[in-house]
Order: sequence, then C-alpha cells, then structure tokens
Amino acid sequence: MSKILVFGHQNPDTDAIGAAIAFAHLQNTLRDEEVEAVALGTPSEETQYALDHFGLTAPRVISNVKDDTENVMLVDHNEFQQSAADIAEANILAVVDHHRIANFETANPLYYRAEPVGCTSTIVLKLYKEAQVEIPKAVAGMMLSAIISDTLLFKSPTCTPEDVAAAKELAAICETDYEAYGLEMLKAGTNLSDKSASVLLDLDAKSFPMGDKNIRIGQVNTVDLKEVFDRQKELEAAMEVENEKNGYDLFVLIVTNILDSDSELLVIGEPKDKVEAAFNTKLENNRALLKGVVSRKKQVVPQLTEAFA
Amino acid sequence: MSKILVFGHQNPDTDAIGAAIAFAHLQNTLRDEEVEAVALGTPSEETQYALDHFGLTAPRVISNVKDDTENVMLVDHNEFQQSAADIAEANILAVVDHHRIANFETANPLYYRAEPVGCTSTIVLKLYKEAQVEIPKAVAGMMLSAIISDTLLFKSPTCTPEDVAAAKELAAICETDYEAYGLEMLKAGTNLSDKSASVLLDLDAKSFPMGDKNIRIGQVNTVDLKEVFDRQKELEAAMEVENEKNGYDLFVLIVTNILDSDSELLVIGEPKDKVEAAFNTKLENNRALLKGVVSRKKQVVPQLTEAFA
Repeated sequence: MSKILVFGHQNPDTDAIGAAIAFAHLQNTLRDEEVEAVALGTPSEETQYALDHFGLTAPRVISNVKDDTENVMLVDHNEFQQSAADIAEANILAVVDHHRIANFETANPLYYRAEPVGCTSTIVLKLYKEAQVEIPKAVAGMMLSAIISDTLLFKSPTCTPEDVAAAKELAAICETDYEAYGLEMLKAGTNLSDKSASVLLDLDAKSFPMGDKNIRIGQVNTVDLKEVFDRQKELEAAMEVENEKNGYDLFVLIVTNILDSDSELLVIGEPKDKVEAAFNTKLENNRALLKGVVSRKKQVVPQLTEAFA
Repeated sequence: MSKILVFGHQNPDTDAIGAAIAFAHLQNTLRDEEVEAVALGTPSEETQYALDHFGLTAPRVISNVKDDTENVMLVDHNEFQQSAADIAEANILAVVDHHRIANFETANPLYYRAEPVGCTSTIVLKLYKEAQVEIPKAVAGMMLSAIISDTLLFKSPTCTPEDVAAAKELAAICETDYEAYGLEMLKAGTNLSDKSASVLLDLDAKSFPMGDKNIRIGQVNTVDLKEVFDRQKELEAAMEVENEKNGYDLFVLIVTNILDSDSELLVIGEPKDKVEAAFNTKLENNRALLKGVVSRKKQVVPQLTEAFA
C-alpha cells in the first residue's frame, strides 16, 4: 500500500492538528507504510502556541489527497464537506472522531472509532494504550493541548470524566502544569484585534447541510464579547460576502467568552426564525446571548439540526 | 434514559442475532437502563440451529422502534435501508459493525466501533475484554456461531486472523468443537428445498443504493448449486415480482457452494452490463459462475459499487 495521510478538518483547531500528529505517530509505529500527519490549513494562534511550546513544527498543508496518495485516515471529523476536496475519491482506511456522523460514505469496510467524549485526542490516548505504544513527550503535549482546547479547560458541557482523566495522564507524561499552561494557550487564541473580519469568520468555521439549507457555523473565543461586537457592522458585511460567495443560506457566528462560559450569536442570512426556534430566543439586531453555551457540537448543531428537520 | 433496544439488520443472519444478544448482555451489565436484544426478523434455520444448540430463545421480532422506546444500538449494520423502518427518528447511541458506512446519519455524537474484520461478534468479544465482563457460555456459543457463519468456517476472504483467534477463544468458553459444530450449523442453513422462491430470495438479502439505482443482493448457501438452479425459472419469476413490488432496478442472487467456496450469480433487472463489468464476465442465461467468490461484502458489493460509480 502507498503512503497514508492523516488529517483533521478544514480550518484546523488544536484537536484537528494534535490528534493528527498523535494518530499518525501511532500508525507509523504499528505499520510498514509511511504515515504522515498533514493538515487542511495552517494552525491557529492557539495551536501555534502549543506547537511552539512543545517544540513541534506545523504539519504540511494539503488541499487534496490525490497529489500524494489515495490512502487516508481522518481524525476529528467525518463529514465530507469538512474534509479534503477530493475525499470522496480517497480510500478511507480509518476514522477517529467524536462528532455526529453525516455526509460520510465508504465503498469498503474500515476502522471507525467514535466515542461521545469531548476530544478526539482522548480516544487516541486509548488507542495508544490498547496498542501498548509509548507516547513521546511532545506528542502527549499536543494531545493535552487538544483536550484543553476542545473542553475549554474542562468547562464545556462536552467534557466527560474520561477527558479530564486523559488530560491529567497526558500532563504527567509531558510534565506540564495543565491549568496554568491551558489558560495561557487559550488566551493565545483570543487575539482577534489584528485579524480582518473575513479571517476571523474563517478561524474555526464548519459547514453543515441542514434540511435543504447550507449552514455555516463559525466560532471565535474571546475574553471580552464587547471587543468583538464593536466590529459588528464589519463582521456582518463580511458574513454577507461569505454567504454570497459560497452559497451559504445562513451564517451563524458564535462568539464565546472563555472566562464566563457564555456565547453571543451573530446571525446573517435566512431563515433566521429557525435559529430563534432552535434556541427559544429572539434575535435583536441579529444577535442573541446564550447563557452557558460554549459548545458548537453539543449546544448549537443538534438544536439547529432539529429546528431544520 | 428509557429502555434501549439492540438489533442487527433486516433478514437477520447468525451474526445479526448473535451480536445483538452478546452486545445487549454486555450493555445490560454495564448500564442502569434495561437493554433488550431484539431482531428485525425471525431466525434462519442456521441461526435457529445455533440458538437451539446453546439453549437460547430467539429475540423478539420488532419492525419499528417507536412502539418500545427511542433509544437504540445497532449491530452488524449501519445503512438505514437495512434497519428498522423508523430508524431515522431513533436516537442511535451506539453502532458495532464490520461493514462499509453509507446512508447513515445521526444528529448527535455517538459510540461507533467498526473494524474491517470478518464478523461483528469478533469486535464484541474485544468490547467484553476491554470492559472486563465475563461472557456466559450460551452467549459465547452464539458469538462463535456468528463467526463461523460470517466466515464460512474461516474460508471467506473476509476472515482475518483476529476472527480465527476470537472463534478459538469463544469455543473454549462454550466448550465446543468448533469444526464439527460449525459444519453441522452451516449445513442446517442449506436446506432450501422446502422453501418457496420468494422466501429463498429473502433469506439473506440486503438493499444497496448504487449511483441512481436501487440494487437488491441476496445470498443463499448450498452444498449443491444444481439443486438451486433446477429452480431457475421459478426464482427468476419471483425476482421479477420483487423488483416490481419494491422498486429494485436489479436483483442479484448469489448462490454459494459452501463446500467448494464458489458462487454462481443469477441476475434479473437492469443494467446487467454493470454486473458484467463489475466481475469481468458475461452473463449467460442470466447466470455467471464466480470462482472463489463467497463474500457479498468483500467480493460483490465493492465491485458493483465501483461499476455503478
């Protein structure tokens, strides 16, 4: 078999990069074929902070599979619209993920490992243990960073006891004070002021088909909601451009205060009433504050999916 | 959470029934909720032979989920068209499977465990070990029967070293001579003479969307191909009725000689040229002998899927 690429979703977050590095290292240890961690985009500032901290370089960026190989393994995603452009033609050997399954299809049986935990890297840790492979310090550091990122330092409702236990185990391996390190890493990702509106919208955005609509859901972390909404007009204009350019019916931007664990939505496009129904709220000036909401996966996507069903 | 149903695919084979019994027992041990193994059809003669041998009764037959609960776990399948009629409305908590993934979608993250091995019960054995739960003798017997059935006593190309090792481990638990028992069990499933053509077509049949066509693929095991093809006209007439009644474009019946490990196809419907392309053969009198072909999953479905792509 030819070379195998391992990668997370487009607009990679720290789990998409960290789990790819970790799962590729595991597979490289277990297999004869060359296994390379790559990424469908450059690291965010948060991820770059983690890579720098643990002395790793960012994975090579690819946009399609066929220039390298036909064999791939996916981490932290499965929906084709979040994956490589030519994923439908690739030979998917394995998936390790913690999301819903949708718009995913293979011609052949494969290895698929999904669990409803807070972070893919929590599952990858299990796979290391099952295979009895030692985790290098730097790899453990990226896996720890991924768990901190996905669970907002264990504050997200997606966080399970397994994620907390995994983070502590990984912190011991990489000899890191996870609370102090974690807060610094999360803060490194909230530096939004020097980013254009279109960059900010694309930092951590995913597309979801819902009913016959195409929904774009972006998320940004901040320590100050006001700082972001001071740029509301600029953001709205950029969202309209994105909707027009990419055929999104609706763009939902989740602005999350990582200190308070609340989010405020900014919504552009139609049908807005589905958003209001999903969260039992009224949009005012295209905005709605959602107390206690920090997780797109658990507190936004299922609610919207149901509203569109 | 309310009661949880565990079931395999429609037209259940021995793995669909055996893995459901085994996974339900494991989940019952691990969870507070009541977990019940049910089935989307009555057992085949092969499966009934295994149930009788190990002193178990057949799982209750259901056709939809909502009469009992909304929570389900699927074994040995994932494609919705092979599942309960109202599967799209159910809350799918877990899937344990060894097939391709297609026409499957959830609103929420779930537990999904698929591996490219020969039998779901081989994976379920791993889950028992990971959870350190003891397997009752009769349950081990059904899991052993499932592996023998799916791998045709290790002769199918879908059989992996893991399946063989699992079968030996299970045989030790249920204190069974797996070779002697296995051949008797497989032969119990080849008694076709007293079945009408329509019953025979439906014994082990699944539907697959391919391209814009709807393909039905049935399989019967025999120790004498001639005995089955003596009824060719009767079978063809019944296949035409099934196509008409259910909107199948093409019905492919795989008649497998479990002693020689060869299969002969009988094909009714269109486009037949895709079948010829898939297997690089010519249909004569709607038939083609495929030497060494015994596995629908590995030697028929992928080839047809590619021909229709």
